[in-house]
Amino acid sequence: MTKGIFITFEGIDGCGKSTQLAMTKEWLINAGYDVLQIREPGGTVVGEKIRGILLDKKNDSMVSLAELLLYEAARAQITEEVIKPALEQGKVVISDRFFDSTYAYQGHARELGDDLVNSLNLIATNNLEPDVTLLLDITPEEALKRRQGRGEAEDRLEALGTSFQAKVREGYLQLASSVDRVKVVDASCSIEDIQAQIRNYIQDLIKV
Amino acid sequence: MTKGIFITFEGIDGCGKSTQLAMTKEWLINAGYDVLQIREPGGTVVGEKIRGILLDKKNDSMVSLAELLLYEAARAQITEEVIKPALEQGKVVISDRFFDSTYAYQGHARELGDDLVNSLNLIATNNLEPDVTLLLDITPEEALKRRQGRGEAEDRLEALGTSFQAKVREGYLQLASSVDRVKVVDASCSIEDIQAQIRNYIQDLIKV
Repeated sequence: MTKGIFITFEGIDGCGKSTQLAMTKEWLINAGYDVLQIREPGGTVVGEKIRGILLDKKNDSMVSLAELLLYEAARAQITEEVIKPALEQGKVVISDRFFDSTYAYQGHARELGDDLVNSLNLIATNNLEPDVTLLLDITPEEALKRRQGRGEAEDRLEALGTSFQAKVREGYLQLASSVDRVKVVDASCSIEDIQAQIRNYIQDLIKV
Repeated sequence: MTKGIFITFEGIDGCGKSTQLAMTKEWLINAGYDVLQIREPGGTVVGEKIRGILLDKKNDSMVSLAELLLYEAARAQITEEVIKPALEQGKVVISDRFFDSTYAYQGHARELGDDLVNSLNLIATNNLEPDVTLLLDITPEEALKRRQGRGEAEDRLEALGTSFQAKVREGYLQLASSVDRVKVVDASCSIEDIQAQIRNYIQDLIKV
């Protein structure tokens, strides 16, 4: 029984998560909420080291199953060390990615299988689920254009290209069609319009 | 269907695995076998990085579940990248630790539970099991004396002390009593006598 609210942001790389997360955080803080912002994988000393292994392009020999288990290890750490205590203190926890990323990237795009990913997700979090998940939906082509506009260097997963990102997007949309907590946000419109959609969904949960 | 033979060495820290592994390797090579020696966690580029996180004493905030999942990630990598290809080529693979360590350390001593560890072990290895497992059995007190005699620095797990090692040993012996592939080797006797016991068990499997 937690008192806080757990909100996760999902979507392919370049969908605008960081910008929207920052705006949402400010909005909630201005409304008087105690907000904790985290990111996955990472967010803990141990988790950031795992993140380093996952995102390093030199580790291209990594097999899909090892990748999956590394994400789950980082998740177990942040859930126990950070998320659960914050929720028990009544905080609003907003996370840049959580276990739906694993469903879309490893389960669907890497084809490791829904059942395996779902069971590992629940093992790693001890059945903790977000209260609402905002899926920022955008085409891989549009996302690539944005990332190039920012002049960002590619990490190991981004280097897999738009066909991989298209499979990830497909996985996300499939999830949203079957899980009520996952809300599809049209992320092709203006920053303000995207934020308005997000606020609507959050206002269904808490008074802001 | 693999053509090779997979032999694993288990036991608490200081039980003498490294010495016995080296002697066994030499014996098998002299008998004409193509031997591949590995260690767990590690043995791959990705796995050695995971090993670094696991054994670093600075990571004392690591929760047990994250630790378990990191071991399984390293295991998935070495199984797919190294062990399976070697066995398919007909090699004798000898490993310093494998998934029974996870049973004894995380499942039993850390009390994460047998069922959880067993199911993760089988997920990580895709059901690959050793042909024989040599459990070098010794008391924690004797093992500590040996490690001190070698002037070794303690790693993160060894720093937990002899009461933890006693629980690990209990887990190993429990496993050996229920799994036929796990053979208990009395590791309190001389190096030569320990090696003789090991050779006997291996000769039950292959002609040396």
